[in-house]
Amino acid sequence: MSLSDRLLAGDLRALARLATHVENDDELGRAALARIYPSTGRAHIVGVTGPPGAGKSTLVNALIGEFRTQGRRVGVVAVDPSSPLSGGATLGDRVRMMERHADAGVFIRSMASRGHGGGLAPATAGVVHLLDAAGFDPIFVETVGVGQDEVEIARHAHTTLLLQVPGLGDSIQTIKAGILEVGDILVVNKSDRPGADELVRDLLHMLSLAERAEDDWHVPVLRAQATSGEGMSKLAERIERHRAYLRETGQLAERERQMAAIELSGRLRRELHRRLYETGEASTEFGQAVEAVACRRADPIAAATNLLVALSAPR
Amino acid sequence: MSLSDRLLAGDLRALARLATHVENDDELGRAALARIYPSTGRAHIVGVTGPPGAGKSTLVNALIGEFRTQGRRVGVVAVDPSSPLSGGATLGDRVRMMERHADAGVFIRSMASRGHGGGLAPATAGVVHLLDAAGFDPIFVETVGVGQDEVEIARHAHTTLLLQVPGLGDSIQTIKAGILEVGDILVVNKSDRPGADELVRDLLHMLSLAERAEDDWHVPVLRAQATSGEGMSKLAERIERHRAYLRETGQLAERERQMAAIELSGRLRRELHRRLYETGEASTEFGQAVEAVACRRADPIAAATNLLVALSAPR
Repeated sequence: MSLSDRLLAGDLRALARLATHVENDDELGRAALARIYPSTGRAHIVGVTGPPGAGKSTLVNALIGEFRTQGRRVGVVAVDPSSPLSGGATLGDRVRMMERHADAGVFIRSMASRGHGGGLAPATAGVVHLLDAAGFDPIFVETVGVGQDEVEIARHAHTTLLLQVPGLGDSIQTIKAGILEVGDILVVNKSDRPGADELVRDLLHMLSLAERAEDDWHVPVLRAQATSGEGMSKLAERIERHRAYLRETGQLAERERQMAAIELSGRLRRELHRRLYETGEASTEFGQAVEAVACRRADPIAAATNLLVALSAPR
Repeated sequence: MSLSDRLLAGDLRALARLATHVENDDELGRAALARIYPSTGRAHIVGVTGPPGAGKSTLVNALIGEFRTQGRRVGVVAVDPSSPLSGGATLGDRVRMMERHADAGVFIRSMASRGHGGGLAPATAGVVHLLDAAGFDPIFVETVGVGQDEVEIARHAHTTLLLQVPGLGDSIQTIKAGILEVGDILVVNKSDRPGADELVRDLLHMLSLAERAEDDWHVPVLRAQATSGEGMSKLAERIERHRAYLRETGQLAERERQMAAIELSGRLRRELHRRLYETGEASTEFGQAVEAVACRRADPIAAATNLLVALSAPR
């Protein structure tokens, strides 16, 4: 029995092994995605994003508990920030998450955010497909909301939770502002901290400025304290309500198309990258184009246009 | 006389107009880049990056002064963070920069960081080429070091200054860590603030951990106070020394190839994006592929591979 067939039969060791192949984007991983893809589309995918220190891992951990009490099998894909210094979440968070590993109804996968050759977003989507095909639902995708890759990851979800936290200061505000628009549910975590009221008010104010139609989803701002579990059942309920909203209004199909579009354009970039850097023949073509541009024999636009034709030839 | 010819003759109004066309990546802008590209490759391009609040604009402003006293014509391309809330640098910084506009030996261009259709990095490189062809040297490119686009912009330089500042806290550390490796010169700005000594020591420690060969460039850590001008002449001198180092060791050619490679891969992504979203025919193809992926009739990898062939056909 192939790894893919074993995954479809619910074998978690096959799932773990295939996740590595998908993350490496190797031939086995690519073949597996093709094989299992028709069995996907059942899970509710929940993006969880927010700045470092917002308590994303702790919140996801608390949400796992909420959905486990309902008997749901919960998947988590955690994307660490690309930092050689920081290991991402604190050790405490990871340890709490690790405890879940003993539970066969929970599958947690941490993605390294380096070494994907420009394909972090497609690799993440690929692992989500594996979890989906293996019957996990919901699937949480945790990511720091910084950079194009990570905004793409956050948007490749049916429901996106955007975490904010009081007292992180202005530098962070600058960064998070760019992704405020992706949130379906805003969560003010660590809401016992000073400044929580002001943050809730600011968020409500920003939301009030956005144009929206009569039947648009009303983005809620929820207070939470993930460490104590306060606000978690309400948050889980809102996630379900957003899922029901997408289904009832017919927006689910539209959201699925958006997700497919995001994944497809990420995959296209990834394919281009593979052909540029990972196949000997193409490397030569790329090297020659680089030399021509560096020596001013060709301008970058002309070189890129020619290269695109050369790289897309079936191989 | 075409705008390109006027630019090559030193007409700054032609330069300003072409910068808009290059930023829009329209036909005129693309034709101009092809026309002027052979006249580029003379300027020393200096990337200036660091977290929000590090004082990048103020430092660039001070460096303009240093190079102007040497009679050099100085170009600046400032890339604002993609935030709907923050306008990037503070108004004060911008006003100080604006004062330079009265000086014909200084040309400053602010780039909007949205609306480039995945092409912020190539658009920035394009504007740098215009400044280079118009005879500006050095050219400073100021960018917040967050995200793939901006790291690419920072790396598309002969010399990259990485600004750090005491007291920005851990959240920022996480972000900046990923781009520490791009710095040719590290600058601890606002060095009168508490924590400057520790920051210098930490940076020196991190640098000491990096492997380097005997004749590698020795990355200096300089203290500066851009607002008072302290440390600026030394910084300008180090920039010149790095330029000389690149020339004397033959590494300039290697750096030029790296820059061409970065620009070319950005241009390739940009070309793909144009064909995906900006031409009617391709949109149809993309829409059909998205529908097929969303409905699980095709898997994302197969769809992307087919689409790449379809999109790269000469048109």
